Amino acid sequence: MRVDQRNLDQLRPIKITKDYIKHAEGSVLIEVGDTKVICTATIDEKVPPFMRGQGKGWITAEYSMLPRATETRNIREASKGRIGGRTMEIQRLIGRALRSVVDLEALGERTIWLDCDVIQADGGTRTASITGAFIAMADALGKLREKREWAQLPLRDYLAATSVGIIGEEMALDLAYVEDSSAIVDMNIVMTGNGQFVEVQGTGEEKPFTYDQLQGLLELGRKGVQELVALQKEALGEVATYINQGD
Amino acid sequence: MRVDQRNLDQLRPIKITKDYIKHAEGSVLIEVGDTKVICTATIDEKVPPFMRGQGKGWITAEYSMLPRATETRNIREASKGRIGGRTMEIQRLIGRALRSVVDLEALGERTIWLDCDVIQADGGTRTASITGAFIAMADALGKLREKREWAQLPLRDYLAATSVGIIGEEMALDLAYVEDSSAIVDMNIVMTGNGQFVEVQGTGEEKPFTYDQLQGLLELGRKGVQELVALQKEALGEVATYINQGD
Amino acid sequence: MRVDQRNLDQLRPIKITKDYIKHAEGSVLIEVGDTKVICTATIDEKVPPFMRGQGKGWITAEYSMLPRATETRNIREASKGRIGGRTMEIQRLIGRALRSVVDLEALGERTIWLDCDVIQADGGTRTASITGAFIAMADALGKLREKREWAQLPLRDYLAATSVGIIGEEMALDLAYVEDSSAIVDMNIVMTGNGQFVEVQGTGEEKPFTYDQLQGLLELGRKGVQELVALQKEALGEVATYINQGD
Amino acid sequence: MRVDQRNLDQLRPIKITKDYIKHAEGSVLIEVGDTKVICTATIDEKVPPFMRGQGKGWITAEYSMLPRATETRNIREASKGRIGGRTMEIQRLIGRALRSVVDLEALGERTIWLDCDVIQADGGTRTASITGAFIAMADALGKLREKREWAQLPLRDYLAATSVGIIGEEMALDLAYVEDSSAIVDMNIVMTGNGQFVEVQGTGEEKPFTYDQLQGLLELGRKGVQELVALQKEALGEVATYINQGD
Amino acid sequence: MRVDQRNLDQLRPIKITKDYIKHAEGSVLIEVGDTKVICTATIDEKVPPFMRGQGKGWITAEYSMLPRATETRNIREASKGRIGGRTMEIQRLIGRALRSVVDLEALGERTIWLDCDVIQADGGTRTASITGAFIAMADALGKLREKREWAQLPLRDYLAATSVGIIGEEMALDLAYVEDSSAIVDMNIVMTGNGQFVEVQGTGEEKPFTYDQLQGLLELGRKGVQELVALQKEALGEVATYINQGD
Amino acid sequence: MRVDQRNLDQLRPIKITKDYIKHAEGSVLIEVGDTKVICTATIDEKVPPFMRGQGKGWITAEYSMLPRATETRNIREASKGRIGGRTMEIQRLIGRALRSVVDLEALGERTIWLDCDVIQADGGTRTASITGAFIAMADALGKLREKREWAQLPLRDYLAATSVGIIGEEMALDLAYVEDSSAIVDMNIVMTGNGQFVEVQGTGEEKPFTYDQLQGLLELGRKGVQELVALQKEALGEVATYINQGD
Repeated sequence: MRVDQRNLDQLRPIKITKDYIKHAEGSVLIEVGDTKVICTATIDEKVPPFMRGQGKGWITAEYSMLPRATETRNIREASKGRIGGRTMEIQRLIGRALRSVVDLEALGERTIWLDCDVIQADGGTRTASITGAFIAMADALGKLREKREWAQLPLRDYLAATSVGIIGEEMALDLAYVEDSSAIVDMNIVMTGNGQFVEVQGTGEEKPFTYDQLQGLLELGRKGVQELVALQKEALGEVATYINQGD
Repeated sequence: MRVDQRNLDQLRPIKITKDYIKHAEGSVLIEVGDTKVICTATIDEKVPPFMRGQGKGWITAEYSMLPRATETRNIREASKGRIGGRTMEIQRLIGRALRSVVDLEALGERTIWLDCDVIQADGGTRTASITGAFIAMADALGKLREKREWAQLPLRDYLAATSVGIIGEEMALDLAYVEDSSAIVDMNIVMTGNGQFVEVQGTGEEKPFTYDQLQGLLELGRKGVQELVALQKEALGEVATYINQGD
Repeated sequence: MRVDQRNLDQLRPIKITKDYIKHAEGSVLIEVGDTKVICTATIDEKVPPFMRGQGKGWITAEYSMLPRATETRNIREASKGRIGGRTMEIQRLIGRALRSVVDLEALGERTIWLDCDVIQADGGTRTASITGAFIAMADALGKLREKREWAQLPLRDYLAATSVGIIGEEMALDLAYVEDSSAIVDMNIVMTGNGQFVEVQGTGEEKPFTYDQLQGLLELGRKGVQELVALQKEALGEVATYINQGD
Repeated sequence: MRVDQRNLDQLRPIKITKDYIKHAEGSVLIEVGDTKVICTATIDEKVPPFMRGQGKGWITAEYSMLPRATETRNIREASKGRIGGRTMEIQRLIGRALRSVVDLEALGERTIWLDCDVIQADGGTRTASITGAFIAMADALGKLREKREWAQLPLRDYLAATSVGIIGEEMALDLAYVEDSSAIVDMNIVMTGNGQFVEVQGTGEEKPFTYDQLQGLLELGRKGVQELVALQKEALGEVATYINQGD
Repeated sequence: MRVDQRNLDQLRPIKITKDYIKHAEGSVLIEVGDTKVICTATIDEKVPPFMRGQGKGWITAEYSMLPRATETRNIREASKGRIGGRTMEIQRLIGRALRSVVDLEALGERTIWLDCDVIQADGGTRTASITGAFIAMADALGKLREKREWAQLPLRDYLAATSVGIIGEEMALDLAYVEDSSAIVDMNIVMTGNGQFVEVQGTGEEKPFTYDQLQGLLELGRKGVQELVALQKEALGEVATYINQGD
Repeated sequence: MRVDQRNLDQLRPIKITKDYIKHAEGSVLIEVGDTKVICTATIDEKVPPFMRGQGKGWITAEYSMLPRATETRNIREASKGRIGGRTMEIQRLIGRALRSVVDLEALGERTIWLDCDVIQADGGTRTASITGAFIAMADALGKLREKREWAQLPLRDYLAATSVGIIGEEMALDLAYVEDSSAIVDMNIVMTGNGQFVEVQGTGEEKPFTYDQLQGLLELGRKGVQELVALQKEALGEVATYINQGD
């Protein structure tokens, strides 16, 4: 039925390669089907000016695509001299989402930079970025924990994201690019490990959606995120033992 | 209970002044409590290059704030030389939302520019912009209808927006700035006249939210939008008779 | 004779609405015929780096137009990523003019930001901005006077501006847009309350002008500014009693 | 009395070197005391988009300073990534002034680019630019006249500019930098060969000026421009015989 | 002796993974020690405006680094809003070098975009980019050859690059980052398959170098490039049979 | 044989005018045939942030061309809002080259800004800039030596540059613009007074070059630089007695 024979409620194959970039404090190559994103976490021992002296940390994210991540070559934002609206929107979403599960007081006056660079795109790059950035961040915090001898990582819970949508009459999980292009409703869902919502962004540009459709999409998304969180735990190995599962 | 004694499910006082700017094809000053936005609609008899020759129209929006719309002076984006992420996100939202109720084929190869300039801000500027821009757009289309002798405006339905949020333990409708700042969950809801969703954007940056809370917020939002649509109809007067109510 | 039946030496109707924006220290909506400008004054308790430690204040101005302030939509300078030459020229003029009547030593190390945003344009926007900005500034200084218990405002005199020009063979005061477009000579005159010149900018792009024409234009301008200063005094009410009239 | 022993109504020594840059259609090095400006005129056989098809030409000017034209090094505008307000104002003035004496219909659909690059600055760079740019432009038009076999250059008159100001109690012609810095009133005057005004820009930033002072300054400026026009004629040699003297 | 026990005249281990990005016409991940670069080739069926109508093709390159390609995070050029001098210099070098072995007439009016994105940096990123970009380009041309039924690829020869330098008293091939940082002379050498020079860029910033040292470095570079060309041939497989070896 | 009848191994006529700009600490107009460059040296009593506290100085260069330095008018980089790749490359080269002969410790925490502005271009502008900038820098250091009572200038040697190339079958020294355009190999050589290499940049964009051709070009370049250094010594006069000749 779907382009890759998946069931409507099935995620694409997920592959997580940790320590992908040797210089970064945390790094991961996350592959969600043919979508591939390099996520790195950089710990900077200071916060931006507007936060100094409050004893709290900060999380910020940047997102970009290589020119040939996509079917046709896209012009680099550096060449254009400005970051486009779509990129801005995505990197604000990633930062805000990740921030929601970090205990910023426990982190202390540090900034974590999350860089999500899409090297190959096939739909769902922003949700793959969130899922991968969580792992890179947790891994970087794992190293900091050792150095600082913290009992726990300054995290309140796991965090992962996926997309859901309505294609024709059907609701489907984890849309590939061709599915996303033809979806009449498109929704990104970011949830914590214990099943609460952090972000719900649904758009019915082609056609508005009903209350019942919204419920169905939320349920599909919840299922997908639970599976992603299980994979995050597995990938994190020993570091996972220092992460709270929100209650 | 609320800062201005409103009930939790009550909108702030709304005032709509049509034909506010003499040069624009459609214009409105919308006041939602102390939030004041000038919305103008400009009809341009061509479409952007990427849409030429398809026989369809386009809707695009720009959003800005005067420097002293806010408590402390904010630096002009023209002076910074670039548009910030928040502005980008908002103007993309306004454009996408308005587009969802326009019959672009019926509009023909025209662009409607919606300019939303906040002259005074007190929370909810993006949702006030959407509600006001719909009126400016409908009014501009009303004039075009007369000239083109169309039977109907090329609109599928009404469109309005409001914000809802969780303050402390309570769910509240149409947050003023002080409420918004202290809300743990913040959601913007854009709906059509017949009660379907066009955009749902909920963020639990401070604290994730449960499925039940999400349901409560959606219900509050629905009530608010219905009241706003009633005010839009009243403001549009005769033009309203040429607008479909979506079914 | 003139497009709106005015006499050649007659100003358009002037309307001044004070306290137009609730957040600003001083604010005014000034209407000169169909030209409408929101002027706000922001008092910042520091000066720019190049002036620090001199015990003196600074006055700076910014000017902008809403996209549909004009007959055809003009592109936002924020979208272009740079401020155009006309805007630069105007905001430099406003700042320089206002600075000329402020006693910067008495002001102390503070900056006053004057924001002039044209919401509807019909000629004379820069002179309306100067006239309106003076009121917003005086009002803001009035509040500062109360707090600081100053005997007087740190102002040397009133300041207002108008335009004059030669249309065909006739000299006219306060040009509306259609007049300005067809004028062969165009002059902006900024004067103090006691009738001295602060700025005289005359341009004969279409045709140079004679010494006698220059004298006639200066006389018309002087008459217009005197009437504007009288309106400023009235609008300022009690604050006016703390302003010196230059001698 | 003056820093260089000049009389109050005396210009600094003027030196005009024509054909200074071999590639340009017209070029001049103009020296006004220690102020040195390279002016080139480039004739481009087309007009900007907004003027196409009207059968008229266009004149546009650009102005810049080398970093060490001034006492302390100024940062290049190319390095800042934007042109400053002062530069904008000056280049708009130069273009507008030169345009006023060109018969744009007779010029035909051509653009003349005037580039004024200050290699050493000692006050009066904008007025030296105008005076020098006129010569470069006339010279370039002289070559075009030969090629097109025009009877006359498409010029209505000569054009030159100088500055005047009030230093202490005295009115002085052609201010050097140290004089300009201490002047309480500063005025730039652009006039045609037959003694009419093209631009009068007077600023009393430090102190407003009276009607009588304005008259005195205009008279000094008139005297200076007449002397400059005589030098222009001499420098242009045979080309001068093809220039109208406005009547 | 060297940080990784290599001989002075030994390259680091090279790994070439072809078809690394599914969307690109040609793509490669090239690893030179710990330096990793994704090179893609995009064939665009048109040339830039300045080359239209000449019947010739064009080659252009862009180069970038992920923020954490390096030991400390570098700020994205898109965030700065401009491309830095080092990047400009490198991408101009890559484009110029690759162009030197392409028969632009045989290519026809097409542009080949070469994108070199460094995902991990350990010295020699520009030379690895050239070596990798050649493979991506040849592969893309291989596909074009099949489609167009060309007898040969429009290439005159192979092309590869390496760095050489003087560390202390010793001359060394293929410098890793720590070596490069301490080198007193640093040289990049781009050569063709038949051993001729395309670019020689040697810099003695710390200390100038003698004629004899220059000879020694050129010899080392020649040896390294020959080995790289052999690896390119192997990686290209069947495509290699359609490439001329320059004579 | 050559366009200006020179021998293949002959420089164009060189003219050096010192103290060309009165405000700069060191300045020179260097003319190499029809190529004319104003070079100024500015001594700034501080270093950039990344070098503070190391007790060492810094040398930085900027390069620009007037719009009509060239046959057709080139657009100002300030108008484009960014510095192009060619300019970046050249100014990095000038800075790096000059730095190589300065004893930065002996200079102390000072920056020398070298501004090279091409007022007329006829090939070899970057090498003329280096040769001229050395004189401006030495002159500025000469004045600093007197003030600081240094025994020597903080220079290790002289520095000059020239270009060489292969035109048809012939190797030629100091290429004029028409020669440079038709050269198949183009090389810039920067050398010290004692005949060592600081930069060698050779490009065979049209055709790769052999080892033997490289040797011939290096020899021609060496000869040219020696002659240029002799002219530098002569121009520097007494200052030359305080410069080391590298050994």
